[in-house]
Amino acid sequence: MSEQKKDISQLGEFGLIDLITKDIKLKNETSVFGVGDDAAVLDYKNKKTILTTDILTEGVHFDLMYNPLKHLGYKAVVVSLSDVYAMNANPQQIVVSIAVSAKFTAEMIEELYEGIKLACEFYKVDLVGGDTTSSLSGLIISIAALGYADEEKITYRNGAQENDLICVSGDLGGAFMGLQLLEREKKVFTESKGGQPDLTGFEYVLERQLKPEARYDIVDELNEKGIQPTSMIDISDGLSSELLHLTTNSNKGCKVHLDKIPVSQELKEAADEFQLEPTTIALNGGEDYELLFTVSLSDFDKVKDWDKVSVIGHITSESDGKHLVTPDGSLVELSSMGWDGLKSEELT
Amino acid sequence: MSEQKKDISQLGEFGLIDLITKDIKLKNETSVFGVGDDAAVLDYKNKKTILTTDILTEGVHFDLMYNPLKHLGYKAVVVSLSDVYAMNANPQQIVVSIAVSAKFTAEMIEELYEGIKLACEFYKVDLVGGDTTSSLSGLIISIAALGYADEEKITYRNGAQENDLICVSGDLGGAFMGLQLLEREKKVFTESKGGQPDLTGFEYVLERQLKPEARYDIVDELNEKGIQPTSMIDISDGLSSELLHLTTNSNKGCKVHLDKIPVSQELKEAADEFQLEPTTIALNGGEDYELLFTVSLSDFDKVKDWDKVSVIGHITSESDGKHLVTPDGSLVELSSMGWDGLKSEELT
Repeated sequence: MSEQKKDISQLGEFGLIDLITKDIKLKNETSVFGVGDDAAVLDYKNKKTILTTDILTEGVHFDLMYNPLKHLGYKAVVVSLSDVYAMNANPQQIVVSIAVSAKFTAEMIEELYEGIKLACEFYKVDLVGGDTTSSLSGLIISIAALGYADEEKITYRNGAQENDLICVSGDLGGAFMGLQLLEREKKVFTESKGGQPDLTGFEYVLERQLKPEARYDIVDELNEKGIQPTSMIDISDGLSSELLHLTTNSNKGCKVHLDKIPVSQELKEAADEFQLEPTTIALNGGEDYELLFTVSLSDFDKVKDWDKVSVIGHITSESDGKHLVTPDGSLVELSSMGWDGLKSEELT
Repeated sequence: MSEQKKDISQLGEFGLIDLITKDIKLKNETSVFGVGDDAAVLDYKNKKTILTTDILTEGVHFDLMYNPLKHLGYKAVVVSLSDVYAMNANPQQIVVSIAVSAKFTAEMIEELYEGIKLACEFYKVDLVGGDTTSSLSGLIISIAALGYADEEKITYRNGAQENDLICVSGDLGGAFMGLQLLEREKKVFTESKGGQPDLTGFEYVLERQLKPEARYDIVDELNEKGIQPTSMIDISDGLSSELLHLTTNSNKGCKVHLDKIPVSQELKEAADEFQLEPTTIALNGGEDYELLFTVSLSDFDKVKDWDKVSVIGHITSESDGKHLVTPDGSLVELSSMGWDGLKSEELT
């Protein structure tokens, strides 16, 4: 292969599609026919089908100055699969559409797809179709994910019951903290015209931002432990925002204890540098892709020693309101300052 | 409601989602749960699931100077459904993702979704999810469509057999011709700083470009007539390009008679104005969303008097090559100059 970068316009749409699809092999029994026709053909037999879609745009969801393309492709798949897991379902197929501007070379697109394919391998999903086109400005990635579940397993946002325990997987706020670090170092880099960024010691929060994972393991373990969550949602916009979604959809209230919200040691240290409160970040920082779910009080024994999950509060009646409980026992009304895909600074 | 245009950034992502989704009602039995959770839930029972996706970008696939937003929304859905029909399948659900820049108001997004919802009504599909976000430049629409079919009905691109008849629905080239007219009038308008465009007499080709339809009726009538096509593809890139796809995927050759390629009277008149050959436009102009399919020779009686369908040639062995037959009987090798989503002028 030539050392020279391949120009996408020389390759053409079909050349680019060949480049992207040539090594795709289907893994799942539910994938009958993948790329290469007008549409993919799938077979879910007597399961229910789950469908979700997400769109990521350059300059809004990612910055190619610090998002390596391979990680970006991986993350785009994770964002989409996370929604399927949040239904207590198993993702099986994705279709990926991209729009790219003139600055992209074939090598860059290949790198992006390396990440997409790596995520497909890791999460055992099949890439069964997509669309590629040009854009006037930047990169846009749109992914639709399909999965399946038994009807009785599917977990909606609206099923939380009074006295249910509120649980959250992993720890929160890391992805937001990672983003702050990357933004700071980008500024240093830009202002010093090339100074080397120093991100040592913050590998964990950086990885939370650059290469998050979707919690398939939580879905598997819920099943193994015989826990049927009463409601579930993935944390893409921040805990506060997702708590509001879940309780509003369920017509319930909640009490969440601030000191029970899980944060990592590294987040605490980084937050300290930025003079920020770790819990505030955990409540409002998005993109952690952890799962927020409720379980019946009778399942307490099954979750209390589960090291991947924290019980952070409980569901109350709607009239009791939605509250955070501070360590000294006072109540603060829950409000959302969650990360918002439509940030006003980009729209004005 | 206030007369003032609503600013999307004031509305926020969730306000915008409410605005878009508030009047969505599910129509199809296969749609178990639509918008409002992490993902949609669908039930195809023992049918096979069909999945396809398309992405349309401003400045590449449409120009807001002459694409009314409502028509654009309608067309975006049609583009996606056309791929499902081309599998001889029935679309049932779509998910729509959009990315919009700062120049868009809430009213504009509502107008776009009016078109999307109108298409959903007309084609009896359910809008079951999506994603909305901002973009740094322009509008991007990405749609994934789902459908179903009985296994034995599904029609791939690769099933054409020697001596099969090559059929095409409707007439071709109109959408391309409509685009040329719009581009010409845009130029006139821009240069004369506001002169009124004159598009009288070309309503048909303009509608082919601005508000095309997907051929659900052909799929229905194939079924009613008891015809199982051996292969099928929708004509999005131009007849030549799709003929090459279909024959290459089937490992076959073809002979297509130029004088049998269906073109409308209005296309002929418009082509005359532009000093273009109608057949050349029909072969290479894209976006007609007609269906190209092959049927067994034994089905000739079923297609010969079908007014919506033209038999334009037949499938040959691969070694016979891929040819166009001119009216005087000479052979011209089939080549593709088809409309290409990755047009080089946009990438350089």
